[in-house]
Amino acid sequence: MTAAWSRKDLLGLEDLNREEISLILSTAESFKEVSTREIKKVPALRGKTVVNLFYEPSTRTRVSFEIAAKRLSADVINIASETSSVRKGETLIDTGRNIEALKVDIIVVRHNYSGAAVMLGRSVKASVINAGDGWHEHPTQALLDIFTLKEKLGRIEGIKVSIVGDIAHSRVARSNIWGLTKLGANVTVCAPKILIPPAIEEMGVKVVTDIDEALARSDAVNVLRMQFERDGESAFPRQLEYFKNFGITRERLKKAKKDIIIMHPGPLNRGVEISSEIADGLNSVILEQVTNGIAVRMAAMFLVAQANENISHETPD
Amino acid sequence: MTAAWSRKDLLGLEDLNREEISLILSTAESFKEVSTREIKKVPALRGKTVVNLFYEPSTRTRVSFEIAAKRLSADVINIASETSSVRKGETLIDTGRNIEALKVDIIVVRHNYSGAAVMLGRSVKASVINAGDGWHEHPTQALLDIFTLKEKLGRIEGIKVSIVGDIAHSRVARSNIWGLTKLGANVTVCAPKILIPPAIEEMGVKVVTDIDEALARSDAVNVLRMQFERDGESAFPRQLEYFKNFGITRERLKKAKKDIIIMHPGPLNRGVEISSEIADGLNSVILEQVTNGIAVRMAAMFLVAQANENISHETPD
Amino acid sequence: MTAAWSRKDLLGLEDLNREEISLILSTAESFKEVSTREIKKVPALRGKTVVNLFYEPSTRTRVSFEIAAKRLSADVINIASETSSVRKGETLIDTGRNIEALKVDIIVVRHNYSGAAVMLGRSVKASVINAGDGWHEHPTQALLDIFTLKEKLGRIEGIKVSIVGDIAHSRVARSNIWGLTKLGANVTVCAPKILIPPAIEEMGVKVVTDIDEALARSDAVNVLRMQFERDGESAFPRQLEYFKNFGITRERLKKAKKDIIIMHPGPLNRGVEISSEIADGLNSVILEQVTNGIAVRMAAMFLVAQANENISHETPD
Repeated sequence: MTAAWSRKDLLGLEDLNREEISLILSTAESFKEVSTREIKKVPALRGKTVVNLFYEPSTRTRVSFEIAAKRLSADVINIASETSSVRKGETLIDTGRNIEALKVDIIVVRHNYSGAAVMLGRSVKASVINAGDGWHEHPTQALLDIFTLKEKLGRIEGIKVSIVGDIAHSRVARSNIWGLTKLGANVTVCAPKILIPPAIEEMGVKVVTDIDEALARSDAVNVLRMQFERDGESAFPRQLEYFKNFGITRERLKKAKKDIIIMHPGPLNRGVEISSEIADGLNSVILEQVTNGIAVRMAAMFLVAQANENISHETPD
Repeated sequence: MTAAWSRKDLLGLEDLNREEISLILSTAESFKEVSTREIKKVPALRGKTVVNLFYEPSTRTRVSFEIAAKRLSADVINIASETSSVRKGETLIDTGRNIEALKVDIIVVRHNYSGAAVMLGRSVKASVINAGDGWHEHPTQALLDIFTLKEKLGRIEGIKVSIVGDIAHSRVARSNIWGLTKLGANVTVCAPKILIPPAIEEMGVKVVTDIDEALARSDAVNVLRMQFERDGESAFPRQLEYFKNFGITRERLKKAKKDIIIMHPGPLNRGVEISSEIADGLNSVILEQVTNGIAVRMAAMFLVAQANENISHETPD
Repeated sequence: MTAAWSRKDLLGLEDLNREEISLILSTAESFKEVSTREIKKVPALRGKTVVNLFYEPSTRTRVSFEIAAKRLSADVINIASETSSVRKGETLIDTGRNIEALKVDIIVVRHNYSGAAVMLGRSVKASVINAGDGWHEHPTQALLDIFTLKEKLGRIEGIKVSIVGDIAHSRVARSNIWGLTKLGANVTVCAPKILIPPAIEEMGVKVVTDIDEALARSDAVNVLRMQFERDGESAFPRQLEYFKNFGITRERLKKAKKDIIIMHPGPLNRGVEISSEIADGLNSVILEQVTNGIAVRMAAMFLVAQANENISHETPD
């Protein structure tokens, strides 16, 4: 009948096929209702242990996973790199194996190294969910973006989505591109040339450096967070310039479809990549993305945990 | 029969009337027994999500709210400013709306800005409980102080309470004054002149700068924590001087009522605002205050959550 | 029939007799199975509150206790010194009494001061479990080491165990020595002379400074973590030298029993006190120690909580 999920991990959308992505989305749909109940809890993962292993600070993603796990009745343990034995020089794999030895069911990992989640997934029998690894992938963010688009537009096949911002250094962009193109959307990336990675077209996207051109063709635009604050003192003039050339404003949206959908993974830089008016306006679905993140992460955890129980494990080498 | 609670938030005692304050106190009374059971848990908030959003470090208050929520069977999420997206420049209102989008029921907020809790309460449909905002209010601390007084003295109407310490910069003092005067207590504030805010008499209190005079008239004295440590190297001589002039000691209490009640919101500065002998002595109810904090916070969370379910929400602007 | 546990605290193995240690081990045996179930949870401590009070950062031990408590269905509160009111100068005893006033059942404490756990245990009616205090004791680590040895060798009586590393500054070594000797094991300590405390023989152990001699006589070797990183820049040459003279390597194990058991409390310094090949090899039980830590800590929490309920408390002075 329905497709079955057979992977113990969720590491990225590049590996998944259309059916697998659709299965996560439909599972998320059925979990979304839980968070609207008076008692927002189902016993699906009761007695399971979920570890949030975060090597980069991220309250938003950690809290979303923590709430999702608790609404599935799992026990949740938070490990932040600041207080972890990483400080004592333990490697990620050692840490993973130690966590696994605690008979943990799911490790949600965020790491600044691209490939960290894949490496961890190979090292442990526990399920691993990638909560963002370097510039590589952030699959649950892309899934919640796609879930929200589908909720709003009724379908993904054939819709036109622009992703605007620092494409070169964005795991959110990469995961969105994999997921959207697999489901048949037309994806355009838009940024200053220097922020577009070489050969990005090979991922099946169109490249545009003119924001107005990108907006004109789009059913939805996913506005990435610009991280100028890393530049220190020189950030402000660069922010102003970026806002002038690529910021999503009312003026600019006049040339777009009237009901264009505005998305942003958060946290917002108001007045840098988007104006407050648009971020808080009628076209924005930014807070709905946050809401949908819970459902998508409940679905991801539920599916990997269930698949993992059906796998007969041998000791990893 | 009994008064009903209709507010979605608990932001301060200034806004509440006598009946509302009494209702929290009587609700706390019925919850106090839970913490004496073998299984210290009731299902009142099962399936509800409580977020502790702390922009100032405060283990004591955070832990008290966390335990209270867990004894009501709620799920609790801790967010500390050190690791929050506040670092990325997100505003309090953005943070609040994002938390609300996670379908959270109660946000317990501590913030160094006076008015932060009110602002947050207006921005979100979730219930907001003020766990201390700048110099403004700390309502649950005052409620637990008043609860303890009522437990010891049988009533609040007509009792004489002195509040000693840095009145000018104390949200604990302000909330106590609002709560105690509304319930009919006679409140005296006592401090060096420089620590008494102008026009404090308009809050309905008597001002005294002689500690012996304050003690002589009191059924109870609430000793505030002095924060000299902010002064760095110059703290020690100032601490000595304060202790000499305002410290609560055995010598000084000889002139007070024999059964005067000694309160302190903690943590103690032994030998600064109070001597160890008195803090640990028979008149001290300091640890009972801590115990009562759980009951009062259970009551506050229970009442706001229940009221909020009965409110039909529109989207906040 | 079975021995009964009557202590409200678990502070160290020095105080315990053979029967008490055996009771923890057999209780742990029965709890070990819980972590292999599909629903890894028993209601033994439902409605109880456990506080992890950590004055030293230790993700591994904290997480192990947190998971153990949650599998017993307890509510767990984490307090780390970085965010605690310790910063405001509160003493350990004040902190303990405040935590107790929250009607907490068990305080798990880690502290850099030898004797801290004993001091805390005397100050509060709540149960106290020592999770490591200075150079003094780390009883649950030793118990999980001994549990693992018993699981592998079938007995402790008469087995030969070497402890290798910085004996002088190791609470793990001290607790292991107390526990193993009480149960009748023959214990050898092996280290450079400067890392052997004077009069250690009085604890009933043999002292050896030649690692090959120690290995030759051992059924098992417990390799301690070397903390050279505290030495800053000079660490590397000292690490190399230590590895050359005391590191556990394949070469060195050629002269040992073929099935010698290799233990390490973690986290590993690969290439300092042990080679990767041996740490990950067939003789290593390092990850099994981690797994057994959960069972041992469940047993410890269960026993102290149960004993404490049967004690009629008077107010501590």
